[in-house]
Amino acid sequence: MWGGHFQEGPAPLMEAINASIPFDRRLWREDLEGSAAHARMLAARGVIAKSDLDAILAGLERIARKIEAGEFEFTTALEDIHLNVEARLTEDIGEPGRRLHTARSRNDQVATDFKLWTRRAMARADALLKELQRVLLDLADRNVDTVMPGFTHLQAAQPVTFGHHMMAYVEMLGRDRSRFLEALARAGDCPLGAGALAGTSYPIDREVTARELGFARPMANSIDAVSDRDFALDYLSAAAIGAVHLSRLAEELVLWSTPQFGFVRMPEAFTSGSSIMPQKRNPDAAELVRGKSGRVLGHLQALLVVLKGLPLAYSKDMQEDKEGLFDAVDSYELVLRATAAMLEGITLYPERMRAAAGVGYTNATDLADWLVREGGVPFRDAHGIAARCVKVAEERGCALEELPLDALQAVDPRIDQRIFAVLGVENSVASRTSEGGTAPLRVREAIVAARVRFL
Amino acid sequence: MWGGHFQEGPAPLMEAINASIPFDRRLWREDLEGSAAHARMLAARGVIAKSDLDAILAGLERIARKIEAGEFEFTTALEDIHLNVEARLTEDIGEPGRRLHTARSRNDQVATDFKLWTRRAMARADALLKELQRVLLDLADRNVDTVMPGFTHLQAAQPVTFGHHMMAYVEMLGRDRSRFLEALARAGDCPLGAGALAGTSYPIDREVTARELGFARPMANSIDAVSDRDFALDYLSAAAIGAVHLSRLAEELVLWSTPQFGFVRMPEAFTSGSSIMPQKRNPDAAELVRGKSGRVLGHLQALLVVLKGLPLAYSKDMQEDKEGLFDAVDSYELVLRATAAMLEGITLYPERMRAAAGVGYTNATDLADWLVREGGVPFRDAHGIAARCVKVAEERGCALEELPLDALQAVDPRIDQRIFAVLGVENSVASRTSEGGTAPLRVREAIVAARVRFL
Amino acid sequence: MWGGHFQEGPAPLMEAINASIPFDRRLWREDLEGSAAHARMLAARGVIAKSDLDAILAGLERIARKIEAGEFEFTTALEDIHLNVEARLTEDIGEPGRRLHTARSRNDQVATDFKLWTRRAMARADALLKELQRVLLDLADRNVDTVMPGFTHLQAAQPVTFGHHMMAYVEMLGRDRSRFLEALARAGDCPLGAGALAGTSYPIDREVTARELGFARPMANSIDAVSDRDFALDYLSAAAIGAVHLSRLAEELVLWSTPQFGFVRMPEAFTSGSSIMPQKRNPDAAELVRGKSGRVLGHLQALLVVLKGLPLAYSKDMQEDKEGLFDAVDSYELVLRATAAMLEGITLYPERMRAAAGVGYTNATDLADWLVREGGVPFRDAHGIAARCVKVAEERGCALEELPLDALQAVDPRIDQRIFAVLGVENSVASRTSEGGTAPLRVREAIVAARVRFL
Amino acid sequence: MWGGHFQEGPAPLMEAINASIPFDRRLWREDLEGSAAHARMLAARGVIAKSDLDAILAGLERIARKIEAGEFEFTTALEDIHLNVEARLTEDIGEPGRRLHTARSRNDQVATDFKLWTRRAMARADALLKELQRVLLDLADRNVDTVMPGFTHLQAAQPVTFGHHMMAYVEMLGRDRSRFLEALARAGDCPLGAGALAGTSYPIDREVTARELGFARPMANSIDAVSDRDFALDYLSAAAIGAVHLSRLAEELVLWSTPQFGFVRMPEAFTSGSSIMPQKRNPDAAELVRGKSGRVLGHLQALLVVLKGLPLAYSKDMQEDKEGLFDAVDSYELVLRATAAMLEGITLYPERMRAAAGVGYTNATDLADWLVREGGVPFRDAHGIAARCVKVAEERGCALEELPLDALQAVDPRIDQRIFAVLGVENSVASRTSEGGTAPLRVREAIVAARVRFL
Repeated sequence: MWGGHFQEGPAPLMEAINASIPFDRRLWREDLEGSAAHARMLAARGVIAKSDLDAILAGLERIARKIEAGEFEFTTALEDIHLNVEARLTEDIGEPGRRLHTARSRNDQVATDFKLWTRRAMARADALLKELQRVLLDLADRNVDTVMPGFTHLQAAQPVTFGHHMMAYVEMLGRDRSRFLEALARAGDCPLGAGALAGTSYPIDREVTARELGFARPMANSIDAVSDRDFALDYLSAAAIGAVHLSRLAEELVLWSTPQFGFVRMPEAFTSGSSIMPQKRNPDAAELVRGKSGRVLGHLQALLVVLKGLPLAYSKDMQEDKEGLFDAVDSYELVLRATAAMLEGITLYPERMRAAAGVGYTNATDLADWLVREGGVPFRDAHGIAARCVKVAEERGCALEELPLDALQAVDPRIDQRIFAVLGVENSVASRTSEGGTAPLRVREAIVAARVRFL
Repeated sequence: MWGGHFQEGPAPLMEAINASIPFDRRLWREDLEGSAAHARMLAARGVIAKSDLDAILAGLERIARKIEAGEFEFTTALEDIHLNVEARLTEDIGEPGRRLHTARSRNDQVATDFKLWTRRAMARADALLKELQRVLLDLADRNVDTVMPGFTHLQAAQPVTFGHHMMAYVEMLGRDRSRFLEALARAGDCPLGAGALAGTSYPIDREVTARELGFARPMANSIDAVSDRDFALDYLSAAAIGAVHLSRLAEELVLWSTPQFGFVRMPEAFTSGSSIMPQKRNPDAAELVRGKSGRVLGHLQALLVVLKGLPLAYSKDMQEDKEGLFDAVDSYELVLRATAAMLEGITLYPERMRAAAGVGYTNATDLADWLVREGGVPFRDAHGIAARCVKVAEERGCALEELPLDALQAVDPRIDQRIFAVLGVENSVASRTSEGGTAPLRVREAIVAARVRFL
Repeated sequence: MWGGHFQEGPAPLMEAINASIPFDRRLWREDLEGSAAHARMLAARGVIAKSDLDAILAGLERIARKIEAGEFEFTTALEDIHLNVEARLTEDIGEPGRRLHTARSRNDQVATDFKLWTRRAMARADALLKELQRVLLDLADRNVDTVMPGFTHLQAAQPVTFGHHMMAYVEMLGRDRSRFLEALARAGDCPLGAGALAGTSYPIDREVTARELGFARPMANSIDAVSDRDFALDYLSAAAIGAVHLSRLAEELVLWSTPQFGFVRMPEAFTSGSSIMPQKRNPDAAELVRGKSGRVLGHLQALLVVLKGLPLAYSKDMQEDKEGLFDAVDSYELVLRATAAMLEGITLYPERMRAAAGVGYTNATDLADWLVREGGVPFRDAHGIAARCVKVAEERGCALEELPLDALQAVDPRIDQRIFAVLGVENSVASRTSEGGTAPLRVREAIVAARVRFL
Repeated sequence: MWGGHFQEGPAPLMEAINASIPFDRRLWREDLEGSAAHARMLAARGVIAKSDLDAILAGLERIARKIEAGEFEFTTALEDIHLNVEARLTEDIGEPGRRLHTARSRNDQVATDFKLWTRRAMARADALLKELQRVLLDLADRNVDTVMPGFTHLQAAQPVTFGHHMMAYVEMLGRDRSRFLEALARAGDCPLGAGALAGTSYPIDREVTARELGFARPMANSIDAVSDRDFALDYLSAAAIGAVHLSRLAEELVLWSTPQFGFVRMPEAFTSGSSIMPQKRNPDAAELVRGKSGRVLGHLQALLVVLKGLPLAYSKDMQEDKEGLFDAVDSYELVLRATAAMLEGITLYPERMRAAAGVGYTNATDLADWLVREGGVPFRDAHGIAARCVKVAEERGCALEELPLDALQAVDPRIDQRIFAVLGVENSVASRTSEGGTAPLRVREAIVAARVRFL
């Protein structure tokens, strides 16, 4: 395989540690496309003959059909997808196959295949995120008026609407999409033609191969071309942040589906029972969305660690780039799909949410704001007055709006009858009309605007 | 501080774990600017009086001068920079100070301050990267013809030039810059005006405050505004990848300055001696550039972990966002500066590089390529012939070009006298004229193009 | 500082990246103790004179008093704690100070100081864990009969007691302690005497210095002695696992103190209010316990990354070992203390727990088990029967024990009147008498046993 | 599967995210052993009949043979290994199969299976580490007198021997073994019998099942038993530290096998060639040993992240524990084996090492130490004198021992003829006779002692 200067074959242990074919076979389509583009360019530049090209293209086509049909035999003795394909091609078509690797090295070949694969995964991530945004927007649309407690520190803070809450995730996913789209643009340079690391003396045309493979242009530096794995890091960091976003939503779904919260019921098809407790309906899918974020984080760290401290250009450590990325892509796509499916089948319990929104003095800020607006009280003082009213209500074991007026006036005489109009949960929600606020009219505007921005 | 419903103060241990003033005082400038913008807007919308505004602005100005002069007394009893500033303001100017917090919460305030600070750090990172690119470009410019071995697997692979090698880093840093600039654009939405999480009922103008603080627009969703720390993650992931790039360069500098390689001599001002070994000159700064990448990776991991699984909107865990980011920013800026300074003072030993470029049969590919071009041999066969020539040379203990022609012809009779013209290191380098290749004329073009793209 | 072969001083930037005195001054006590032990041994072996020793010991003593009094002036020009101390000593006592570094290098000196410091931190971690176990045991003791729902998937599963739940943490902390104690034993070998990396030609006695400094013995290999930082990794991995344990407890405290759960009330001194919402009482300390675990994880990752791939023996990258460990130790000790203090002041609401324990058909397993025991029904069938009973009760909107007997018998006729005796929550708890089970008598035994094992 | 209260089956997407059978089938042996032990105990305590037991044991035996023969059909519809086995058992033997799950839950079952598997992996790690120590000891034994440069900062520091250098790794691996053995002991408590989380009301005997499965005792708390994954974290942190150790050695092998160092030649069976450069012989296996450490670090982080913040007892996130651990175990075992095999076949070039040991003034410390010993010069002064001698030699471009005596005396007149006897590399090595030092006699002692301690 390496020509005549090697005397022994690899040890079996070497095959076990070295062979990448068990996982890089997943790059077969990209490898075949890359080889076809390379061969066409070689023929166009006169490096190989037209007849060689025809034989190569037909041979690659045949291999594609074999692999698709599951009939291609991969062998670890041939290390990786590139050598498996080339060896088979040569077996099938003879000498033209031995000309395919002209003006190319595995170093630029693997970088091209892997980058192409990752670019497609970036585009898929964007599409799946968009689909999940659509589900969230529809859910928000139906729940512009569904009042629930807004939490800070997991303590009820102020009433919000479920629609508004869902729209927070639409924004988060919008940022996630921008990360993937920018990564896709940044990965727009094609490594093919960099050779082993120095470029080549053949009269190749890198613009042509780059464009045929969907890249915007060739990479500008041949050493960088074979040593760069930024595109994989870009996917992994975008996916890590995105997975953390989904994990936050999943955490909420797990919480909300406890009997204690009781805000939602997960679709039965995404829950499991127990082998011992006959009553259980566990939010397994949501828990796994949460759990799989750890996995994506681990893969990001692993690749950063592998690359850190490697001299240029290619080192074999970099073979560790693929399994982690593949698994991160699979995991992230799975949790994106599962989250969309769970939300599509979710049942809300608006009365439970509404009731919880009124518990815990979530209208205390409204009282303070009223004192500022109507009484000209400085906010800090109004905050103190409201806090003392809360304390009185706590002692009496009642809600703020259940306190008699004289009890409120005993705290501060500037409070009058009009206060009761602002203490209702619906009033609180409707009053938050600042841009981006939770008032239903604002949320409606936000949904319309988001559909334009994102869908 | 929290109004009348708290009966005891915090435990000393609570102060120790809870107070952020030891580190968030670093946000003082952003906090003052944010407060000034907020107050101006409140006055413009009639929420506070013009006289209140004047007092507030004068008071903030006074505090700024105090802090700059190191005369401001921060106290942990007041937890954080926001309360320290507000308390002092109220102490200084009385009632107007108690009106400043109208239509605002610490949740949107801290998000605004921290995002503003991080945006400035992103801009600084871009500027420092650009400066380092300039240093690399100058170094490349002076070394377009300096031949050195190109390495793969840390084994000499093919000759390249030092200029070409440096240009690989110019490309890597270019990608780093694009990450920071995109992160800066993505962080263009201002959280201010989101209140605690629901928005506010005051007639505020978020467009105005956003623009005054240099943001492009307000954030679209108030819950997202207070729960989002993506901007910090964006900085950290860009810095992690960037630090890995610098770590690769530092690894090379450490290698190249060993007596075994002997390619470079680090500027004495960036080396240290030994307390026991009088002869030592250690490349400490390069080692620390390499080492500090671990630190940045750790901070990225830490913040991802902290955020993973937090329900919306704000949780106190998120206070852990600052120290890690501050330290990552300091570390990354330091290694960017140190790398630039090291490269500016570096001494090259071109003869050592040139000599190493010819060791290890780095011209074997040239022999193979010649057979393809001149003999019409399929590349795979040519590769095998060249490998057998290498073996013959290894057995004789000489270089390929030192083999007599008949020894070469004994391997393959198609080899003739012209082969010796292609086996020279300079020929090898000059022949790699493909786009992005190491041929000096290509590198010269690449330098010109990079100056236009990057400087 | 490095003798005569350096011509320029370090660049200011070099000082900024290189100097460790801003953080390693924290090792001052260990550095002084190490120097004293080294000097005593040198004198005992005749390498330095008795008079030199006396001067050195007096000088070190004086420096200790200065530092303790905050009167010692540290300077970054002298890089680190070791050179700061030695320079001052020589300034104070003259020539004997210049003899102290005989048969020693900074490499073995810093390893010794840092290992000594870390060993003490390990012992402190064990003591703090033990103290927290004591708090948990006392809490468990008072709540052996306090029934609460046991959760899996955050869904009520089976009734347990609060005492039993706390005892789970006693076990987890017991494992944490064993990790620190084993790490302490593994760190029992003293690096001092390894010199730069090769040992020394002076007739030193490493047994004596090792024992004087509290180590069990000298390290067996001088290269390992200066390149090893396993002890720091051991602390960090034990602390990372330990912090995850505390984070799980903190997560529960945050959940339990929501109005929705309402199981506990955090001590007011460990909560905070809101700058805008007058009613808030946020479990800040618990959230920070949870958040700080991310920080410790980050530091573990960072040091693993730094060390990964460093050739032996010492590289300057290893200077990055200290700040992360110091911060991890501070963070971990803080959360241990804060957790103990929170639990000591916690208020339980047993009625809320008791009520929740009966919600959600947590006695379904008891019904199934009764069918197995009394009816000889195979467990899998009994599980199915109980599941169908749950479904009937769900449809009627009542608890299992509220179903009339004929409804139960309609599902399976083998059910009879005796079933109602096993469906009570207290019965369920009391019946789980297997070893380690939640039955109060078992928990009481477990508490007694744990006091013996752990306190 | 969950009894009658579920109305729909899982969504296909749910199967994809939820099913663990594609990976947890690896636990089949442990699952069968656990079930057999559980059934025997149930029969012994009279919970199931002797005839049931016989049928179960025969059925489990049959399944074991099927799986071993590759004839068992696993189905994702049955989620995991536990349900696959139980369903098949019931299919095969009928009612007794439906009795097996009495007094057991999947929660304690999976914890038991996984812990059992991990314990065996811990024991294997210890055995593989011991085998690698043996290889290192043999290599050290043959090279007690092989002089090489000892490096700090990758700059030659002082001469050491290759044997001494290898012994540093023997020590590191010794600590690794102690981590695995302690983890094995800490994982000595058996979860079986904890039920879902509360224990069980059946009269089970946990001591018996624990001992039958090779554990020392049952876990003390049933909630801890099902929520604990410390044993997996213990494996992962021990493997992470161990992988970092191997990565350091691999980094050295990569360096040493460059032409620039030329200290070693990797066995051909553990190198690869290039698809384009016919001359290449790349140290792929060593690079992969280095690279795979990143992977193990990633898995450690991932599991810490998953567990961080989970309330007790079992959550489905914890299903993410297995794939990472399995891959970490496979990776770590592979690099342990590959490292041993590489070292067994390595070729050393002692002359290259010896020559490098004398380059770079590595005897400067010897000159300083001579001045202390023979001239009574304080070490700090001697260090300065030696540094000035180095400078003179550098200026003349010669070694210290090549300077004429008068040049040395011009630096310091106390230097006399005897100095030349200490400046030789062999003298330097032989003089380092302190305990743990590099003097051959000390290394010989260390090897003997290590064989006793470790083999």
